[in-house]
Amino acid sequence: MERITATYFIETPLEVEKAAAVLAGEQSSGTFVAVPGETDELKQRFAARVESISHQETVTESAIPGARASSGLFHRAMIEVSWSIENFGYNLPVLISTLQGNLYELTQFTGLKLMDLDVPPSFAQHFHGPCFGIEGCRRLTSVADRPLIGTIIKPSIGLSPEQTAALVQTLVGAGIDFIKDDELLSSSANSPFDKRVDAIMRVINDHADKTGKKVMYAFNISDDTDAMLRNYEKIVSAGGTCAMISLNSVGLSGVKKICDQGQLAIHGHRNGWGMLNRHPLLGIEFPAYQKLWRLAGVDQIHVNGIQNKFWESDDSVVRSIEACLKPMLGGYSILPVVSSGQWGGQAPETYRRTQTVDLLYMAGGGIMAHPEGPAGGVVALQQAWQAAVEGLSIEEAAQQYPQFAQSVVKFGKMDKIKNVQ
Amino acid sequence: MERITATYFIETPLEVEKAAAVLAGEQSSGTFVAVPGETDELKQRFAARVESISHQETVTESAIPGARASSGLFHRAMIEVSWSIENFGYNLPVLISTLQGNLYELTQFTGLKLMDLDVPPSFAQHFHGPCFGIEGCRRLTSVADRPLIGTIIKPSIGLSPEQTAALVQTLVGAGIDFIKDDELLSSSANSPFDKRVDAIMRVINDHADKTGKKVMYAFNISDDTDAMLRNYEKIVSAGGTCAMISLNSVGLSGVKKICDQGQLAIHGHRNGWGMLNRHPLLGIEFPAYQKLWRLAGVDQIHVNGIQNKFWESDDSVVRSIEACLKPMLGGYSILPVVSSGQWGGQAPETYRRTQTVDLLYMAGGGIMAHPEGPAGGVVALQQAWQAAVEGLSIEEAAQQYPQFAQSVVKFGKMDKIKNVQ
Repeated sequence: MERITATYFIETPLEVEKAAAVLAGEQSSGTFVAVPGETDELKQRFAARVESISHQETVTESAIPGARASSGLFHRAMIEVSWSIENFGYNLPVLISTLQGNLYELTQFTGLKLMDLDVPPSFAQHFHGPCFGIEGCRRLTSVADRPLIGTIIKPSIGLSPEQTAALVQTLVGAGIDFIKDDELLSSSANSPFDKRVDAIMRVINDHADKTGKKVMYAFNISDDTDAMLRNYEKIVSAGGTCAMISLNSVGLSGVKKICDQGQLAIHGHRNGWGMLNRHPLLGIEFPAYQKLWRLAGVDQIHVNGIQNKFWESDDSVVRSIEACLKPMLGGYSILPVVSSGQWGGQAPETYRRTQTVDLLYMAGGGIMAHPEGPAGGVVALQQAWQAAVEGLSIEEAAQQYPQFAQSVVKFGKMDKIKNVQ
Repeated sequence: MERITATYFIETPLEVEKAAAVLAGEQSSGTFVAVPGETDELKQRFAARVESISHQETVTESAIPGARASSGLFHRAMIEVSWSIENFGYNLPVLISTLQGNLYELTQFTGLKLMDLDVPPSFAQHFHGPCFGIEGCRRLTSVADRPLIGTIIKPSIGLSPEQTAALVQTLVGAGIDFIKDDELLSSSANSPFDKRVDAIMRVINDHADKTGKKVMYAFNISDDTDAMLRNYEKIVSAGGTCAMISLNSVGLSGVKKICDQGQLAIHGHRNGWGMLNRHPLLGIEFPAYQKLWRLAGVDQIHVNGIQNKFWESDDSVVRSIEACLKPMLGGYSILPVVSSGQWGGQAPETYRRTQTVDLLYMAGGGIMAHPEGPAGGVVALQQAWQAAVEGLSIEEAAQQYPQFAQSVVKFGKMDKIKNVQ
């Protein structure tokens, strides 16, 4: 029988072997007194199984509070646990409740993070996965062989549909591939959703009629299920190609319902992610997280960026990009969305470390505040990626590409400061 | 204009006032360079506002990693921030993305927890809230003036529908008010959802026909939205009164879609909660969390229990029960579900500290392993609560109530050990 495997990084005041057994028992059938009719065979069939244990360091202070009894030593380990597919069938919420449910409450753990998970081949028959993925997003935006270049409408909230459309006009004229709403905006008092869609799609459709290129705009449809479906239809009927959802705020079942419609690429925003991930020994790591959303059918997912303005390390960002690009069940292609403080100067390092152009590369100020205006900003980002693929350093690229050179002058200083830290 | 207020416990390497301003700016319109047409008036309209700051201690070690620059001192404070309702209208996911979004990523914070939130009166016109609540759950189970007594089917997974129904037969005969699936089980290889509903509802309906009392069974419908709706209809057509959802695994939009159906009481299981809450300076506290689910329409929500088997303190459990019982928008009644290691011995202390019997009080072994069998176990729990309301101590209650006395002999020792800790 096929099994699902989860890898955890744990810390425990107990012997690691004992703690792993508690985890497996608590999350399957193992911890209760036998009831009539409960045979050993049946128990075996549904019991979770500890597959491997890899000891790591022992520390004298617990990562998170809540141990009931302790010798003062806390042991860390990577453990693998597996469950038969018979336990949950093809039910993602129950899978999550099993892999991440009451576990975090157990006094036997003073740290627990879900690092990765593996689902068996039969999942491919029950989850269609992303309807567009990397290839589909390239097709919708007419972009081949380089990252999609994108930006976010700022200020996050406050602009009218007309002001937003005017900004979009500037951006599509500048040659942008992708634009998105901020996650703080769906329908505000002075920017009702439908009016914003109409105003923006008029600009985008006009541009497409003239140039053949349809810029992808990710409208934030996050809301109740019914409202999301209405918003979705509005985008479809206006000729849009993408909807954005705040994954954590809407939740898995709502997101999957939208992905299942299959007519728009789904831009998955991971805001709230820090709550699930920022502590090194609590929550979930991105390799596990992105698999759940690929199964749900999300086409694009945020991965932060190299030298970002948030707390996350470059190593972690690189791991996230690699996780997205690793095929799952033979495909389930998802486009990593790189953002946060990007201006093109990070392109060489991003490419050096990931060796990919299959990215949606987002910049804000790096585009809007370029000395030659947004058109110069978009060209500078394209140049940055051209240079990155050519293996040029920032300095070499600046010598060769004039718009990029202006970015370096304007945005480079801040970046150098960051590099020193 | 009405405003939504959030209270945060923060830790920052900056001056607290500066960090609070960053939070407010990042989560509204404040941090970006002005664009054409963005007036001060408009900015004022959508800007988040720091309402109050209450300084707490300064520490020399950060609660969570990720500060970029630091003097080595980390300041803690409670802060209140407000947003105009005009920013999001009546959209819970966007509210969540605003109150809990990218905040946790900011290097300006080395700790951030959403403690509470307040929504304005107009929310009552847009969210019907729990369709049943405390009064409705009492009516459905014919229980007045005492806690509903409930139990969980164990083992969590592995029993066939027939075995489960046999257990249910024993429990309804014993006088139980409420039974639930474990969160690990929705539809397993040997217990398909529909078959389990049929087998169990046959027993419950028979019992109701004979006695006039319909025991409430919370079937775990957690799944994709469409599957949940199918499962929901199955319960309705079989004469059931309740569906259970794993709130965090399904997510807010999916849960609300189900609550909106209005025919079944919704039992909200909070598994995964520890991930969001166990760290003292990361995530969300229960007073804020339960409000979101009341707005979504959940009728019952887990609060853990006094002297529980998990890591949570009694003080925290008491705060959670109090939070649920505090009216919201003049009502939005939700029934707190007390569980984890309960056997009746915790009833006096639970009542002493909360002064309420508006609870769903769940026990597992405390019912099934009672010396007189499940019937004795249920009676013992009813006696425990009778004694609690009478103000009796455990010892006094044991002298007066024979079945409870047997519980004390059987389960009391473990509890005394816990009390000493």
